[in-house]
Amino acid sequence: MKHPIATLIAVASLPLAASADPLPSWNDTAPKKALTGFVGKVTKESSPDFVPPAERIAVFDNDGTLWAEQPMYFQLFFALDRVKALAPQHPEWKEKEPFASLLKGDVKAALAGGESALAQIVMATHAGLTTEEFERIVTDWIATAKHPKTGKRYTQMVYQPMLELLEYLRANGFKTFIVSGGGIEFMRPWAENVYGIPPEQVVGSSGGLKYELRDGKPVLIKLPELAHNDDKEGKPVGIQRHIGRRPIFAAGNSDGDFQMLEWTTAGKGPRFGLIVHHDDAAREWAYDRDSHIGRLDRALTEAAGRGWVVVSMKEDWTRIHPDEWRP
Amino acid sequence: MKHPIATLIAVASLPLAASADPLPSWNDTAPKKALTGFVGKVTKESSPDFVPPAERIAVFDNDGTLWAEQPMYFQLFFALDRVKALAPQHPEWKEKEPFASLLKGDVKAALAGGESALAQIVMATHAGLTTEEFERIVTDWIATAKHPKTGKRYTQMVYQPMLELLEYLRANGFKTFIVSGGGIEFMRPWAENVYGIPPEQVVGSSGGLKYELRDGKPVLIKLPELAHNDDKEGKPVGIQRHIGRRPIFAAGNSDGDFQMLEWTTAGKGPRFGLIVHHDDAAREWAYDRDSHIGRLDRALTEAAGRGWVVVSMKEDWTRIHPDEWRP
Repeated sequence: MKHPIATLIAVASLPLAASADPLPSWNDTAPKKALTGFVGKVTKESSPDFVPPAERIAVFDNDGTLWAEQPMYFQLFFALDRVKALAPQHPEWKEKEPFASLLKGDVKAALAGGESALAQIVMATHAGLTTEEFERIVTDWIATAKHPKTGKRYTQMVYQPMLELLEYLRANGFKTFIVSGGGIEFMRPWAENVYGIPPEQVVGSSGGLKYELRDGKPVLIKLPELAHNDDKEGKPVGIQRHIGRRPIFAAGNSDGDFQMLEWTTAGKGPRFGLIVHHDDAAREWAYDRDSHIGRLDRALTEAAGRGWVVVSMKEDWTRIHPDEWRP
Repeated sequence: MKHPIATLIAVASLPLAASADPLPSWNDTAPKKALTGFVGKVTKESSPDFVPPAERIAVFDNDGTLWAEQPMYFQLFFALDRVKALAPQHPEWKEKEPFASLLKGDVKAALAGGESALAQIVMATHAGLTTEEFERIVTDWIATAKHPKTGKRYTQMVYQPMLELLEYLRANGFKTFIVSGGGIEFMRPWAENVYGIPPEQVVGSSGGLKYELRDGKPVLIKLPELAHNDDKEGKPVGIQRHIGRRPIFAAGNSDGDFQMLEWTTAGKGPRFGLIVHHDDAAREWAYDRDSHIGRLDRALTEAAGRGWVVVSMKEDWTRIHPDEWRP
């Protein structure tokens, strides 16, 4: 598999000296100093804080941490596009909520049904397919769909400073994982190209799977049931199940990441908890305690007391996206 | 983490030329030729069968494939030892099956209750602990417990030719995973030392986990419920959930591995399916179609037609264990 972004970073850094800044999109403010200080001490064999490479596990939330999440999670845009594509096969949707509102373009009314409406949309658009069919659909969508507000492809709405951080950690012997509330099968098809994170290092919410033979060929069918909800308390559970050891580094941006940060930083030895704070209305979006999407309240209140580093997108990042633009 | 066995192999091979045999415990029979031929063609960039390193995923069953499994799965010996250790806290077990029989030393009577008896034993001995407590118990047990028939430690009952195969594949850019019906939390504490396979590359059966705070510190509690049964159809499901791409190499030894072999070898491009056939009563055990443990029937019948390579422990392996001995 190609890693265009990793390649770009590698190529871009070729003419630079060995001491080249590994985090060029980070201002020289406290978070960057904390990051380089942490990486320095855990990788120095003579340091009392040295951590063997096998234990250098770093976990990253996705929505709002590695890419944007406004005005709603991008996977939901995917689901809405799927509803439109599938509508001809479901004439009954014209009369049935939440589909009827969606097809009229009224997302707000559709989502008024809360979790149950959301679950119906996800099941109708994510289940009943084989894993290979679903992968193809996601791959096509991510290559072509555009964000309704910015007109950018969704993979252009990733955060350049976080791409640099992923690469910096890997260059220092860390194994980087995604641990997201998003669907595991939704992220895997593009995470390797975009983040340099292979499918086996993606942890996410997942549905049931059924193994069966179709025309003598084995397939895995995605079932309309939630097997694991990788959010809040579900994140440490997903980490244990997939990774089997406690990370030493965790990055998130919302209260959904609270337990992941708590679990990571409660371990013995050096630990790093990072919170991306969306406070840049000019270059991105500004939201925290009152946001419906990516609500950051308790984690923001408790960050200082717990030693978690809060990154201000406005103050600490010189740029937001790989190809700079404003929403 | 140390990998004593990997280190031994590395040290042992130091004085040898670069062309040294990477599989010294394999006779020069058909299976070895098939293995080196396969690895040769998938790693040669100019070959039409070349596979990029990221896609070189190899999966191995554990019981009967990487270590022995007679007269019963080693995890069951662990559970029985736990029942004895826990008995003083459970006076009611003296009257209650399957525990009463177990405590009298009558394993056969205890297991006469079938799956239900087995589930009761596993739940009573594997649940209710934190993941860290359980890990400590397994680590202590594996370091000290001895097999009742051979008097060897269980980790001495691994198969030397398979250790060489794991190392050979890794040296050729493969990522090696365990995909076992055994408990994921039972295998992880020692798989890295013994097989060179880190916790995040162990897939197995798993119970529910609950995240909670105890005295203000977060813990993960093992629940008395089965979350995933990683056997038969459960193996491709576990592979998809954990790894997210189809392996190109699978090794097993029983009908419980049938679907894993089927799923692996049904993919496009070069594929390798390997079956370890226990046919060496002199050096190990001989069993297949009629065995209660590790029954190999359908997979043995269909192996030739499906192109799976059947390895005769008697004919194809020069030695069985790292430290040769006979049961």
